[in-house]
Amino acid sequence: MPKKKYAIGVDLGGTSIKIGLVDEQGKIKFKTTLDSNSSLGPKHVIKQIKHGIKSVLKETNYEIIGIGIGAPGTIKLKKGTVEDPPNFTGWGRVHLGKQIEKEFNIKVYVENDANAAAIGELIYGAGKKINSFIMITLGTGVGGGIIINKKIYRGEVGGGGELGHVTIDANGVPCKCGSIGCVEAYIGNNYLIENVKRDLSKNSNSKIKKLCRKDFSDLSPKIIFEASQLNDEYAKSIIQKTGRCLAFGLGSIVNILDITTIVIGGGVAGFGELLFETVENTLCTRVMKPFRKRIVVLPAKLKNEAGIKGASALVFYKS
Amino acid sequence: MPKKKYAIGVDLGGTSIKIGLVDEQGKIKFKTTLDSNSSLGPKHVIKQIKHGIKSVLKETNYEIIGIGIGAPGTIKLKKGTVEDPPNFTGWGRVHLGKQIEKEFNIKVYVENDANAAAIGELIYGAGKKINSFIMITLGTGVGGGIIINKKIYRGEVGGGGELGHVTIDANGVPCKCGSIGCVEAYIGNNYLIENVKRDLSKNSNSKIKKLCRKDFSDLSPKIIFEASQLNDEYAKSIIQKTGRCLAFGLGSIVNILDITTIVIGGGVAGFGELLFETVENTLCTRVMKPFRKRIVVLPAKLKNEAGIKGASALVFYKS
Repeated sequence: MPKKKYAIGVDLGGTSIKIGLVDEQGKIKFKTTLDSNSSLGPKHVIKQIKHGIKSVLKETNYEIIGIGIGAPGTIKLKKGTVEDPPNFTGWGRVHLGKQIEKEFNIKVYVENDANAAAIGELIYGAGKKINSFIMITLGTGVGGGIIINKKIYRGEVGGGGELGHVTIDANGVPCKCGSIGCVEAYIGNNYLIENVKRDLSKNSNSKIKKLCRKDFSDLSPKIIFEASQLNDEYAKSIIQKTGRCLAFGLGSIVNILDITTIVIGGGVAGFGELLFETVENTLCTRVMKPFRKRIVVLPAKLKNEAGIKGASALVFYKS
Repeated sequence: MPKKKYAIGVDLGGTSIKIGLVDEQGKIKFKTTLDSNSSLGPKHVIKQIKHGIKSVLKETNYEIIGIGIGAPGTIKLKKGTVEDPPNFTGWGRVHLGKQIEKEFNIKVYVENDANAAAIGELIYGAGKKINSFIMITLGTGVGGGIIINKKIYRGEVGGGGELGHVTIDANGVPCKCGSIGCVEAYIGNNYLIENVKRDLSKNSNSKIKKLCRKDFSDLSPKIIFEASQLNDEYAKSIIQKTGRCLAFGLGSIVNILDITTIVIGGGVAGFGELLFETVENTLCTRVMKPFRKRIVVLPAKLKNEAGIKGASALVFYKS
């Protein structure tokens, strides 16, 4: 029997760092979570990463063939640098890959978190048997990754796949990226929650109100979904609107790329069947006729700890 | 001295077929134009193509290394088939490549006309020294081609690069593709001219009125450009609006692809400096920050007979 291979996946976020030991099938054998210390500067963040990797290594006798790191910000793959990740203080450009590699003498792969999520689905998840697909991650931001013939598409300098920043209304609402009317400005978590809060203060009948604290401080996609399951019309209309906005952006992406399989993950994907149905139906009215019959919209398979799994998949992915 | 190589380029349009003998530098040595007979069905169209090629061959003793055909509709590259080209009657799927190859015993390359235009710029024109660029052709339709590392990007089944059908306002005007708010629905020739006609009937001061017949039947991008050169404010505003709409669509394309060189050709590109300036300035406000400094917007170099040249470039292009 061939020896099993293991990888370490590091999911670097602004609040916490999640680190796990993952096998070739994407199964997490052990995991740990640490504070990012992102406000203290890169030295402290790297210290935490090293600390976490050490504690994972302590728990295992398995042979580790590589460490994958999924990070926000701009990544230079070959050098393993991470540049200006949002929500990290005093960062600039940091040779993260080299520093971790030096410490453990294990090969390190650094990739931006959206691409890592797409590679995770390709290696372990919904994309295992699919050649080309568009991965959308619905979270605070709307992230994306493009898989073409089993490879991640990077563009000229590795900045490709900014799928949350596709315009759906050029004269619409401002997006924090500096443009106007991006998909993210309608369905990114914060924008979405703010819009719902504004609506709710006018609309008193929705069940969302009963499921939330009075000040709506705990309002979340999960609560909107729960209200929709209780047949709340307003909650359902939010989910449908989210699906339509996403589909408007996806329409442009499909028409540009001629890739017709869409995989959707992240918290807002928890809106469930109604979201997926709306995306698929709307998308079919927004793409060129020859594409319509080929459209397939799938939920991501990596749900809990998708960040760790995506990062670990970088080790098993042959680029 | 190595022997010069020549290709025949066939530009198949709904009204006319243009055929030329072209050298490796993209210079046309001889050309002819025939009626397409598109209303009489494919047999008659093919007869015209054969007739035209024969008349080109008669005029030359050069050795022809291939025939390139740029055609509208859906193209299957390997089989050389052309499917349902718009404005051609009773067409279905026609094995155009095979029929021409059989007649002349010369290798035939069939490609859709938008991709042929991009390959033309790559082989002879503005893209000769550029690895990756986005080609936009502004005509009746807004067409596009994507060159990535000197290769045309085709997508899963060869339908990629529908750049005129990127959404700029998902709640905007209907597009004849069936979607809503596509770039083409704002700046495609017919839409553009119709909008200007409507505006002019309300606005009596514009110099466009003096440059046109009373019923505006000869209104064209060229006349709008001429009026702008006479400092007509309304004409200038049309050009700027066209540039902005194009830039809104390009913003999405750049954010998806991380390709930052844009080549613009076709009739409406005759709007000149003001158009290019507006596209570049607007685009820089619509793409992610890391892309902004890298944005370059260039006019296509193949102007007259770009169709023949693009088709002939298929022969010199190594896919």
